[in-house]
Amino acid sequence: MAQQKKRTEIAELGEFGLIDRLTAGFAPHDATTLCGAGDDAAVLAPPAGERMLLTTDSLFEGVDFDLTYFPLRHLGYKAVTAAVSDLLAMNATPSQIAVSLGVSSKLPVEALDDLYEGIRFACSEHKIDLVGGDTRASMTGLVIGMTAVGHAPEERIVRRSGARQHDLICLTGNLGAAYMGLQLLEREKRVLADVADPEPHFAGYEYLLEKYLKPRPRTDIVAALAEEKIVPTAMIDLSDGLSSDLMQLCRASHCGARIYLECIPIARQTSALAEEMHADPVVAALHGGDDYELLFTVPLSMQEQVARLGLVDIIGHITPEPTGCFLVTPDGSDIRLKAQGFPESEKSN
Amino acid sequence: MAQQKKRTEIAELGEFGLIDRLTAGFAPHDATTLCGAGDDAAVLAPPAGERMLLTTDSLFEGVDFDLTYFPLRHLGYKAVTAAVSDLLAMNATPSQIAVSLGVSSKLPVEALDDLYEGIRFACSEHKIDLVGGDTRASMTGLVIGMTAVGHAPEERIVRRSGARQHDLICLTGNLGAAYMGLQLLEREKRVLADVADPEPHFAGYEYLLEKYLKPRPRTDIVAALAEEKIVPTAMIDLSDGLSSDLMQLCRASHCGARIYLECIPIARQTSALAEEMHADPVVAALHGGDDYELLFTVPLSMQEQVARLGLVDIIGHITPEPTGCFLVTPDGSDIRLKAQGFPESEKSN
Repeated sequence: MAQQKKRTEIAELGEFGLIDRLTAGFAPHDATTLCGAGDDAAVLAPPAGERMLLTTDSLFEGVDFDLTYFPLRHLGYKAVTAAVSDLLAMNATPSQIAVSLGVSSKLPVEALDDLYEGIRFACSEHKIDLVGGDTRASMTGLVIGMTAVGHAPEERIVRRSGARQHDLICLTGNLGAAYMGLQLLEREKRVLADVADPEPHFAGYEYLLEKYLKPRPRTDIVAALAEEKIVPTAMIDLSDGLSSDLMQLCRASHCGARIYLECIPIARQTSALAEEMHADPVVAALHGGDDYELLFTVPLSMQEQVARLGLVDIIGHITPEPTGCFLVTPDGSDIRLKAQGFPESEKSN
Repeated sequence: MAQQKKRTEIAELGEFGLIDRLTAGFAPHDATTLCGAGDDAAVLAPPAGERMLLTTDSLFEGVDFDLTYFPLRHLGYKAVTAAVSDLLAMNATPSQIAVSLGVSSKLPVEALDDLYEGIRFACSEHKIDLVGGDTRASMTGLVIGMTAVGHAPEERIVRRSGARQHDLICLTGNLGAAYMGLQLLEREKRVLADVADPEPHFAGYEYLLEKYLKPRPRTDIVAALAEEKIVPTAMIDLSDGLSSDLMQLCRASHCGARIYLECIPIARQTSALAEEMHADPVVAALHGGDDYELLFTVPLSMQEQVARLGLVDIIGHITPEPTGCFLVTPDGSDIRLKAQGFPESEKSN
């Protein structure tokens, strides 16, 4: 017989007791943290001469995650990844996060312990300090608000707007795996909805689940770029899908792009599950989102340096603005890229 | 006949169109803002030698506000006040905010325009820059996540933990007005629930409504403290109510406190409405919350300087930790303070 898990109501601890419990064991890693959680505001000491970078992100239950299959520990880790990834996309070093939770009373304190265990693990792995841990009642589902702070010297900061004609378009990792991981979880949820002791079938697709449930931020890429003395001309992280995010970069840089279908890296498990589910892995790669890989551009002259990174694929190049953004298929057809999920405002060529 | 108000669905604009529309017209005020909304992260230049201060706060529909009577323009303004107030409580100068919205599709774009008009007005009034304007779908109500950044020289930063025995406890403004404003709005909502063309009766209580719907952050106090060269030993902003917030300050400073009932400032309208509603204005002042006034402590020797501020009442003094936190009534009785809203863990004397 399964052991009954302990269940403590949030009201038993009170607001201060809860915050103390959740934020315990967060030892400061970063020298820029002078005063963390526990006062009206955190006090940070920016490194002399460097810029501070700031980003905020929110995850909503029912929109961004489904607690029926999303372990809270992984959700905490993923929330940190999502926030930190925006700093990496500026080529900055993440140093602090602040968490603002909205919690319905149906969640016990032990569930929040799990969530914070994931946050704590991510902070420890990436040497980030938790400097705020606000928890409020929410009438509805769980809401995770995440603010991330980082720093970088001005000359290393990469904006979205610097891509120039002929620049190479570079991509880390592979695409569509997180999206197929989500499809797998949704399928098993449907199949097992009325089963008493559900045993989902995930064998062979563990990589896809990990990419969806516990994506790692590409801190290694920012380190490798520094090592190779590469400062990209523009960079963005892939959270909405390659198509939408590339179009955002092009919009900010006032340029167009051509990317080549056969250059887009897709993992073996992604293709295998797509085939099993009669889905198109290219659609997953273009529009899936949640990949948290980095997309950046470098001048054509840097091709060799990029190759030395060993972690990056070159998938296309930047074109003049009036030509627009296109995917080139192996047979040479040009397909105009679209930002999925929003109404079309232009016709496909 | 009333003119039909224009209603634009959020989906008509798309995510980028919506963000562009909402964040338009936010000209940077502060020299520390190098790059605001529109990239993966904002880029800030901290003033040389100063500390950066960071705070996050969230407001949830149904918990923190009721849209049946809360005008969205005021809600935007109040959300900025709530975030900025935490920076003022550290004696810092607010410089940037980032807004993270969760929005249900039932709200039209025009409603978000109103919300942002209030945010824009607050930013302009307090010379703060909006450096992030993330908007996401929420399955449920409106969620407003607010991150505020400020700066201060180390020697002027005031934590909660510095109060010492015999220090004077000082308070800005008056208490309980916001709470009574809320009671008035709730009463009119109940009374007029089934009326076709409701005409609520607010005459004579306009001040209470303004304190609840559009509280102003006490930036004037931080300026006045600097002018008088006063650095408080400890400070906190009053968002949860005098009792709870004073207890937090004492807990952080390892001290007790005695405050005097006849010294607690209560506005005439607050007392009048409390009498009309058969409520106790002292309960409103102690536990009402939402006042956004500042509570601070100074050494006894600074009594004259504090008097010169002209904006502050001295309501009590700091005692040794073992004596606890008490309210002294005019007849000399001591009543132990409690943090309202959470279970008692100690008996009242």
